[in-house]
Amino acid sequence: MSSRKIAVVVLAAGKGTRMKSDLHKVLHPIAGRPMLLHLLAAADTLSPERTVVVTGAGREQVEAAVAPLGARLAVQAEQLGTGHAVMQAEDALTGFDGDVLILYGDVPLVRAETMRAMIERLNADDAPSVVVLGFRPADPGAYGRLIVAGGGDRLEKIVEFKDASAEERAVTLCNTGLMAARSADLFALLKNLGNDNAAGEYYLTDIVELSGSAAVIEADAGEVAGVNSRGELAAVEAAWQQVRRAQAMADGVTLIAPETVWFAHDTVLGRDVVIEPNVVFGPGVTVADGATIRAFSHIEGAVIGATADVGPYARLRPGAVLAEKAKVGNFVEIKKSSVGVGAKVNHLTYIGDAEVGAGANIGAGTITCNYDGFFKYRTVIGAGAFIGSNSALVAPVTVGDGAIVAAGSVVVRDVTADSLALARGRQEERGGWAKRFRAAMTAKKKGQ
Amino acid sequence: MSSRKIAVVVLAAGKGTRMKSDLHKVLHPIAGRPMLLHLLAAADTLSPERTVVVTGAGREQVEAAVAPLGARLAVQAEQLGTGHAVMQAEDALTGFDGDVLILYGDVPLVRAETMRAMIERLNADDAPSVVVLGFRPADPGAYGRLIVAGGGDRLEKIVEFKDASAEERAVTLCNTGLMAARSADLFALLKNLGNDNAAGEYYLTDIVELSGSAAVIEADAGEVAGVNSRGELAAVEAAWQQVRRAQAMADGVTLIAPETVWFAHDTVLGRDVVIEPNVVFGPGVTVADGATIRAFSHIEGAVIGATADVGPYARLRPGAVLAEKAKVGNFVEIKKSSVGVGAKVNHLTYIGDAEVGAGANIGAGTITCNYDGFFKYRTVIGAGAFIGSNSALVAPVTVGDGAIVAAGSVVVRDVTADSLALARGRQEERGGWAKRFRAAMTAKKKGQ
Amino acid sequence: MSSRKIAVVVLAAGKGTRMKSDLHKVLHPIAGRPMLLHLLAAADTLSPERTVVVTGAGREQVEAAVAPLGARLAVQAEQLGTGHAVMQAEDALTGFDGDVLILYGDVPLVRAETMRAMIERLNADDAPSVVVLGFRPADPGAYGRLIVAGGGDRLEKIVEFKDASAEERAVTLCNTGLMAARSADLFALLKNLGNDNAAGEYYLTDIVELSGSAAVIEADAGEVAGVNSRGELAAVEAAWQQVRRAQAMADGVTLIAPETVWFAHDTVLGRDVVIEPNVVFGPGVTVADGATIRAFSHIEGAVIGATADVGPYARLRPGAVLAEKAKVGNFVEIKKSSVGVGAKVNHLTYIGDAEVGAGANIGAGTITCNYDGFFKYRTVIGAGAFIGSNSALVAPVTVGDGAIVAAGSVVVRDVTADSLALARGRQEERGGWAKRFRAAMTAKKKGQ
Repeated sequence: MSSRKIAVVVLAAGKGTRMKSDLHKVLHPIAGRPMLLHLLAAADTLSPERTVVVTGAGREQVEAAVAPLGARLAVQAEQLGTGHAVMQAEDALTGFDGDVLILYGDVPLVRAETMRAMIERLNADDAPSVVVLGFRPADPGAYGRLIVAGGGDRLEKIVEFKDASAEERAVTLCNTGLMAARSADLFALLKNLGNDNAAGEYYLTDIVELSGSAAVIEADAGEVAGVNSRGELAAVEAAWQQVRRAQAMADGVTLIAPETVWFAHDTVLGRDVVIEPNVVFGPGVTVADGATIRAFSHIEGAVIGATADVGPYARLRPGAVLAEKAKVGNFVEIKKSSVGVGAKVNHLTYIGDAEVGAGANIGAGTITCNYDGFFKYRTVIGAGAFIGSNSALVAPVTVGDGAIVAAGSVVVRDVTADSLALARGRQEERGGWAKRFRAAMTAKKKGQ
Repeated sequence: MSSRKIAVVVLAAGKGTRMKSDLHKVLHPIAGRPMLLHLLAAADTLSPERTVVVTGAGREQVEAAVAPLGARLAVQAEQLGTGHAVMQAEDALTGFDGDVLILYGDVPLVRAETMRAMIERLNADDAPSVVVLGFRPADPGAYGRLIVAGGGDRLEKIVEFKDASAEERAVTLCNTGLMAARSADLFALLKNLGNDNAAGEYYLTDIVELSGSAAVIEADAGEVAGVNSRGELAAVEAAWQQVRRAQAMADGVTLIAPETVWFAHDTVLGRDVVIEPNVVFGPGVTVADGATIRAFSHIEGAVIGATADVGPYARLRPGAVLAEKAKVGNFVEIKKSSVGVGAKVNHLTYIGDAEVGAGANIGAGTITCNYDGFFKYRTVIGAGAFIGSNSALVAPVTVGDGAIVAAGSVVVRDVTADSLALARGRQEERGGWAKRFRAAMTAKKKGQ
Repeated sequence: MSSRKIAVVVLAAGKGTRMKSDLHKVLHPIAGRPMLLHLLAAADTLSPERTVVVTGAGREQVEAAVAPLGARLAVQAEQLGTGHAVMQAEDALTGFDGDVLILYGDVPLVRAETMRAMIERLNADDAPSVVVLGFRPADPGAYGRLIVAGGGDRLEKIVEFKDASAEERAVTLCNTGLMAARSADLFALLKNLGNDNAAGEYYLTDIVELSGSAAVIEADAGEVAGVNSRGELAAVEAAWQQVRRAQAMADGVTLIAPETVWFAHDTVLGRDVVIEPNVVFGPGVTVADGATIRAFSHIEGAVIGATADVGPYARLRPGAVLAEKAKVGNFVEIKKSSVGVGAKVNHLTYIGDAEVGAGANIGAGTITCNYDGFFKYRTVIGAGAFIGSNSALVAPVTVGDGAIVAAGSVVVRDVTADSLALARGRQEERGGWAKRFRAAMTAKKKGQ
């Protein structure tokens, strides 16, 4: 790759009115990550010296999302066109001399490879002044057409659909709007842009004609899909998921019903992992080799050990760490807790802010009472401990290694290792009571 | 719209043998509502003076479903064709003089706009005697073809596929069977119908030729899909859902995986509602702006307040009313209960016949014991109350504002505001018991 | 069908490298059953005298799976081609004289009807020496083409794609690799096979030319889909499910969203069963007429009685037997237990190793404590018994007919019929405690 410096400019000033949302368009998530951050993550693999996000409507939201990433911000106060938007980045690029890549916050899935190809083309021996990214949509419709000189990649002109001849409309190569140009060229060209058109806007596209020297790089149609509505957002999400599922299967993961598994942008999956239908992964999940994730599981921020067995209906929340061979069964929620090697938490249980030791067995209906309305407290369950069903462990509390808690107990004090703890009511019986009760209630019901 | 009176006749006498069901075909639901009621609801927007449902096989079921709507009933005792079926409606239309719209109970998704267009065509300046609804199926197959006089909408004839010439078979406009006609014309024409055909039946279609004056209105293929098997029922359900999902997204609702969300016929959704994959809505649900419905939620008869947070795995049953900012988490069932502003019911809980005050916190594993086998009783939980985990609240019972119930308690009497209630066993410990138990059991297991 | 004896040879020696799995390719399951067993089950309907599975890489796994079925095993130590693989079966077929059907372990969904057609063709009056199974894929791509003599089913030759002329490539009938031949012919032909080709392998296909007498039977493209990757595994699973779903609907089962219901290979469904979206069936399930399975249910090894009502979120595990009109509701797990006629287990409950009597009512949050870490014990709940919510029944224990267990009880001893059992703590109240606690905690929180 070229040794010249790179700057990335992302246009994110548009309102996104068709989204009908209070959330800025570029912050709507795909695979659990705001679409703008997808784009910045891909751009980041080019190690840009600077990244400038041009904001406008709803800029506070965008700035808050971008600030932690160290991106610079520019403001386009008025919506005067894409060319005008890029001009607003000039101050943020003061002193920068290199290649500028222009991206759109609502075209979120452009691949790093494609970005790299654009920069490389700009630095080839026969370098053009401007590199334009083209694509071939299934239906070219009203997209601007890229008219290429015979045989090569040199761009003769970009023709708006409304101005195109029948012959030009037959061209299938269309304009994405993405470009790359040297910084000196770019801002010189922008200064020559006019706004003598129906909308009175400055169009970035017009620099192609001004430059007199442009080349085309071609992208897959999928990666340049834009998002202007929630329908398009769902379509881009679906496309992303489809690629990710295929990748998982190619890597040795069984997806019984691939179309029903939703991954997050950062899901990590080992070999011979089996995922049943209907599993949702939130961000921050790692699954080791040979683990099974059963149907209807919902997993975020969790680490799942090798050959662990999860679900069905397991909810793993952030901070859940399951060791090798751990088993988490149905209607179980685990939060900020570790579950030791081979430990079992099989049914109807809430484990929060806890450590469950290796080989421990947590009975059905166990609840760690970790919250008093103000603070959270930890529960420690020792290795090989056995927590009887329907028990409540009131934190902070420790159940020692090998201890047994009798079913139905409310444990409020630490339990010594290898002891039995009981904390439950004494059983009484009232003979014939149920019969009399039924008779009375039946009479009452009739009397109504 | 015409000021003439309208009557609607719905043919629902067919057995639906291919459904292989004890439930009458037209009562199989789509989006949680019997298909016949979808049709009647659309027809109702035309404010018909009378609605007549022609029943036959399984008429008791149909009559029970239709009775509450005030529709009149006619009986077709013998199955002698569609023309014969309409004749049976004559008595129910005695004294009626106006336009008659003929619909089919197993063609349930005809849009009100289409019905209106049929009536309007019947009342235009060059009004025909009969209006026939046509459509263009993806595969015209063996449908009857509508032969239209050059250029206009005047129907020359309807040709059955078996009688059609090659040229006629090439026509893509097909007959749906739906019609509109003035009442006087209709019954006069029906009296002239013959049954001189292989099946010995009276075909409604034949009135077109008898009338000598018919026009065509064209419907979308989707809205005139018929249901004769469970496969077709599923296809119509899928089509309905697809339209509804697109509408939700256009209205500003995020559907991460639209194809996995099932709406009911009357679901109401606010702006910026986010719905994760795999959510099922039953009838009677309203969701206010900015609420989040997480994966695997099942919601019916519930009202969800603004920015409320529901699921994953939340089951809201009829009568659940969540106020603004309420939170209902995983493995929680709420029935006939209100949950106050900002109150939290986060995990493994059953709330039935209860009021949960604003800001109250219901611990994991809490159960309202609302039923004694005969009657249901109410539980009232005050504002800001804190119910410790794994508690049982035995109704009728009130926990006062700001009161705390200790974890694992069984509350059988009212708790005063700002008090602490405890109702649980005392903890004992038997040192070394677990170790001895393990030794004994291990020995027993070996001995087996 | 011919009265000649049949032998089945299944080639299962290939590694399946592209699966990236420690599990042998032919043991990856479809609809809950290893693909090899699907194939053997279909072949078994031909009542073969012998079945030989040719193993190679990972043979221990294949042998363990096949052993219980009585199949003979042959080993292909080196991977020298399909012809060589079949030669390895010669010893296992010593003394056998009849028809040999050659199948592939990774082409798992070939229908019994197709296998039968191959054998029948081999025994027709104009019997060929070899019967080859052909198919017409959507995209013939690089498949070998079957060149058939004009009009009939006589195979002129099989042409590899790379050797095919343009005219031959236009042929849409392709080679599946499956064959049938008389045993004497087969092994004689195999002995004449050469390996004078780039790979140095013995190709089974070559016996067609050597035989000089082959005929073609045509299969559906779907049934001969092969599995070489997890993506193809998912595609075959999807195809299987689609066929099964259509069959269920044709048989009178309502699937509201057919594409979200996953059946196992042996699921049995009655008439007027209704299945909501998102239901997963594991092996061994029978559902009787009129039962309803609600959304998000996960059912394996269970018997569901007529008009029973299951789910949403019901997990039925092996050994769950629900009688007529039983009701199992949300977040309920049932394992190795019977639930009597009309009994209700509505919410948040674990029933394991238990009998629930007819008409019994199990309150929310009930847990049968069936395990002490070493042994499992039974719980018996009598007819008409009422188990109050949030109770724990510590097995072995019996609750008599008509008895009532008070909510929140821990039952450790048998309860007499018609009695009331109570086993819970006594309720105390500490006035104003909660207020003081809040004040102290609020101060502490501020102090942090």
